[in-house]
Amino acid sequence: MGKIADYLDSQQAAREERLFELLRIPSVSADPAHKDDVAQAAQWVADRIRGMGLEPEVIPTNGHPLVYAETPPVAGAPTVLVYGHYDVQPPDPLDEWITPPFEPTVRDGNVYARGATDDKGQMLTHLEGAAAVLATEGKLPLQLKFLIEGEEEVGSENIGPFIENNKDRLACDCVVISDSGQFAPGLPAITYGLRGIAYYEIFLTGPKQDLHSGSFGGAVTNPVNTLAKLLGSLTDDQGRIQIPGFYDDVVPLEQRERDEFAGLPFDEARFMKQLAVDGLSGEEGYTTLERRWARPTCDVNGIWGGYQGAGAKTVLPARAGAKVSFRLVPNQHPKDIYQALKQHLESQLPPGIKLELVDHHGGAGVKFPLDSPYMAAASKAIEQGFGTKPVFIREGGSIPIVDDFARKLDADVLLLGWGLDDDNTHSPNEKFCLADFHRGVRSSAALWLEMASAS
Amino acid sequence: MGKIADYLDSQQAAREERLFELLRIPSVSADPAHKDDVAQAAQWVADRIRGMGLEPEVIPTNGHPLVYAETPPVAGAPTVLVYGHYDVQPPDPLDEWITPPFEPTVRDGNVYARGATDDKGQMLTHLEGAAAVLATEGKLPLQLKFLIEGEEEVGSENIGPFIENNKDRLACDCVVISDSGQFAPGLPAITYGLRGIAYYEIFLTGPKQDLHSGSFGGAVTNPVNTLAKLLGSLTDDQGRIQIPGFYDDVVPLEQRERDEFAGLPFDEARFMKQLAVDGLSGEEGYTTLERRWARPTCDVNGIWGGYQGAGAKTVLPARAGAKVSFRLVPNQHPKDIYQALKQHLESQLPPGIKLELVDHHGGAGVKFPLDSPYMAAASKAIEQGFGTKPVFIREGGSIPIVDDFARKLDADVLLLGWGLDDDNTHSPNEKFCLADFHRGVRSSAALWLEMASAS
Repeated sequence: MGKIADYLDSQQAAREERLFELLRIPSVSADPAHKDDVAQAAQWVADRIRGMGLEPEVIPTNGHPLVYAETPPVAGAPTVLVYGHYDVQPPDPLDEWITPPFEPTVRDGNVYARGATDDKGQMLTHLEGAAAVLATEGKLPLQLKFLIEGEEEVGSENIGPFIENNKDRLACDCVVISDSGQFAPGLPAITYGLRGIAYYEIFLTGPKQDLHSGSFGGAVTNPVNTLAKLLGSLTDDQGRIQIPGFYDDVVPLEQRERDEFAGLPFDEARFMKQLAVDGLSGEEGYTTLERRWARPTCDVNGIWGGYQGAGAKTVLPARAGAKVSFRLVPNQHPKDIYQALKQHLESQLPPGIKLELVDHHGGAGVKFPLDSPYMAAASKAIEQGFGTKPVFIREGGSIPIVDDFARKLDADVLLLGWGLDDDNTHSPNEKFCLADFHRGVRSSAALWLEMASAS
Repeated sequence: MGKIADYLDSQQAAREERLFELLRIPSVSADPAHKDDVAQAAQWVADRIRGMGLEPEVIPTNGHPLVYAETPPVAGAPTVLVYGHYDVQPPDPLDEWITPPFEPTVRDGNVYARGATDDKGQMLTHLEGAAAVLATEGKLPLQLKFLIEGEEEVGSENIGPFIENNKDRLACDCVVISDSGQFAPGLPAITYGLRGIAYYEIFLTGPKQDLHSGSFGGAVTNPVNTLAKLLGSLTDDQGRIQIPGFYDDVVPLEQRERDEFAGLPFDEARFMKQLAVDGLSGEEGYTTLERRWARPTCDVNGIWGGYQGAGAKTVLPARAGAKVSFRLVPNQHPKDIYQALKQHLESQLPPGIKLELVDHHGGAGVKFPLDSPYMAAASKAIEQGFGTKPVFIREGGSIPIVDDFARKLDADVLLLGWGLDDDNTHSPNEKFCLADFHRGVRSSAALWLEMASAS
């Protein structure tokens, strides 16, 4: 690593400038108005890969394009597929950003921008890690395949079929993804489990138009009242989800995991202070880390109905709706949850209200074995990049594609996170610590050397 | 009435043109952007009154102005105060209007515009009725006092203190208000009871900013989930409001009233068809008319929280809120309901959520005696205007000022409605039947003659 490390040190400023370039592109995949920006980000990634001496392809899909490239196979060494995404979450609410979301700004050693850590910055560490090995050694000691998508924040709908139809091309022993976090600053983590997600939208329709709540209230069923009742019925007062059958397939936490989580330096008071809340709540009988990482949830992500303007409008609304998502754990499946939710909602629907339940996207939760040779190689590589051994944790967020890789390519997945808990992913003022960016790049370069001898 | 009726017939076109002029002014009192338009509507009303030969005053308040005028006292005849309002509800949702809300358009004998029936059109019938008597007779056989306000749709906050401070000036035997409806087309009604209203806004605050629902969901209390649970707790599955003490002061329906309502030609199937709903719901044990007119309600008028844009954003929202109002019946009082609601909400607030409960406006419900001489005079006048005797009904909507008039001026209030159930007050495509406009004017002219001999 000596020569590579020297090279990496000499390239810090240029590497940061490349990161900022990518962050300036507002590649918001959820918003059709940003379609061209998303395409521009894909092109940027392809150009970077071409700059490493590889031959990238920008592959069109029914949605946003994939970027793909590979290095030559190396006899006796494994093949590793690197996955990441160049699309980002919408930046709303805009007025809460200190500096604009697509003007990367450095403050206190962090770069602030939408996508800084999720996932442009983290994804880029692996391009830069491989670039450093190529620049210093002329070749890689193993085969790498890069597959970078632009629809992670809207459900990764097109990459699944692509993997299904390109199993030979994408064949690999292991998949590496950096789209998660360290456990704490300076305490890097390998995430061996992720929650899945099932995201739905509820639309309720009552009378054909908004009515006067005085003349009609009390007799005409109010869609917002109904929505509140339906959403309220999803959980009990102990935080347990009340949809019949919801917990049927849940793999319970092992005692070993509960012990490991309990041993982590998690400071609940600091966590609450960081979020500015005076208390926490959740499923009774589980710790905060267990609730965040390894138990299923129900969160209303958005709700609307009736008059939202200033002042008091005495209206009985015609319509109401909500976006509702469930974080899933192994072995829950989104399609089962859809059926159970639909039945639960329909069984409670009052007269005069019509229900539509839209299935937005979903993915199962995953858990990988802690004793694989790839896990060991990753642990050694991270120790070289960060100067300390990683801890093994789970994560509450979802990368639906991980389950696809594991099942369709029959590969282990290594989730190596360089982010931090307070990076504000999906929130205003998203950031990425630049020192961690460089440590991530060093870990990535070391990873390709360590993985070459793992099998 | 012969000469007056002839005069009225000859003036139809000019009268309609005056109505359209007033309807073109977008006097939306709830929206600060329309402040000048509201002032312009006040000026229009004053100009019309001046056109009748009276000396109107435009009286500034802390909000929108009042318009006041009076005719000379007549010995031996009662003094009648006419109340109405020139402000209108917001026109949203705009895209559901067939023709723009402030471009009055006649279709099938109706004029379509925001405020057509609520209350510009109805209020104007009394100016035009008095104008006709003045134009033909030279004077009125009783004293009239006109008090027209511009804040009815935002809670009539400033007229209350004005009445309080001007009891001598406003002293009268009876108040006449047309801001309600006929029972059915061709079946005019005198409304002897109104529901009150208590309108609140709930603001819930959770974490300091929107969070990633994967990383934080399950442990951080979600304000939208909480809001749904709180709103869902306001009623039970039988439509009974669950706030402790809510029904304590409710005056129950008399059997005589229940019998009268049951005898009215109310077609529930037609009612549902009109609203395009396949069922109705409400408080168990009461008929649809009883639920609409004489039982208290709880309606969520608006709700917001989290991501409302297109697609799926996996966010745990920082904030959520709802506008919630209760229709009240005699003898419930908004201040008591506020306390009871606040306590009910606070008692259920989970850790990590802060509650703010804003009291928007309120007014008590009222009921007037059916056997007064003014009620008899009104019945005779309406028979002359509409060609049929009125029925006596109650109404679910609120005119908070009615309670003020009754208590502060110690006067009976006559609620003479010319509107129809499907006039879309507070909804897109509000309308007023032009034939009823003219019948209302004729009834009003007759009313001043009949009232002159009532005492």
